Amino acid sequence: MEELKRINELLVDLYGCQGSLDSVEFLVGILRSAARSMGSKVVKTVSHKFSPTGITVILILAETHISIHTWPEYHYAALDIFICSEEINPKIGWEVVKDALKPSSFNIHEMTRRIT
Amino acid sequence: MEELKRINELLVDLYGCQGSLDSVEFLVGILRSAARSMGSKVVKTVSHKFSPTGITVILILAETHISIHTWPEYHYAALDIFICSEEINPKIGWEVVKDALKPSSFNIHEMTRRIT
Repeated sequence: MEELKRINELLVDLYGCQGSLDSVEFLVGILRSAARSMGSKVVKTVSHKFSPTGITVILILAETHISIHTWPEYHYAALDIFICSEEINPKIGWEVVKDALKPSSFNIHEMTRRIT
Repeated sequence: MEELKRINELLVDLYGCQGSLDSVEFLVGILRSAARSMGSKVVKTVSHKFSPTGITVILILAETHISIHTWPEYHYAALDIFICSEEINPKIGWEVVKDALKPSSFNIHEMTRRIT
């Protein structure tokens, strides 16, 4: 039987973002960079631009997913990095997002979920 | 200014699932039923079937997202219901998933995130 796996989930609230929260291309680029920095494989990318404002981008990864939801009117973004792999550190991906969006403050919540 | 919003996030580990965890159609149907039961609008659906086993389904909602990742070999599924709306109760969606997948046990973690 395979070794039992853990899921590491990093939930981050980003406040006072200076990077653009209303560009799909910019946000897709950031999340892909975050995935690449972690050594994670992107399987699919899905995005939606809401009217009048706000974007959702989700990458399905070989190791689960990364999602971001933005509220540009509040300069706020909600980031989830959800990784099922002992070898991949979601904090590396978070650093890439932080450098790109430049929040003035943030809250991080870390969770570990067990598959068995 | 709009009223400040909360995000309610329900993270559930489902163990010993009896419902099929290896059918994309079945899981998409469950998540859409969950969204409908909450009165939530599905904007996009994305899924991926991994080889040899395991499925990811994510619905982008007008009110954020629902995701499920399954490991059929462990009868385990990780469900996230992530809702930005005071009027929508993610627990109603969770009940729909629970009834369909019939886990023998589960862990629920509830979070509230503030946009401002």
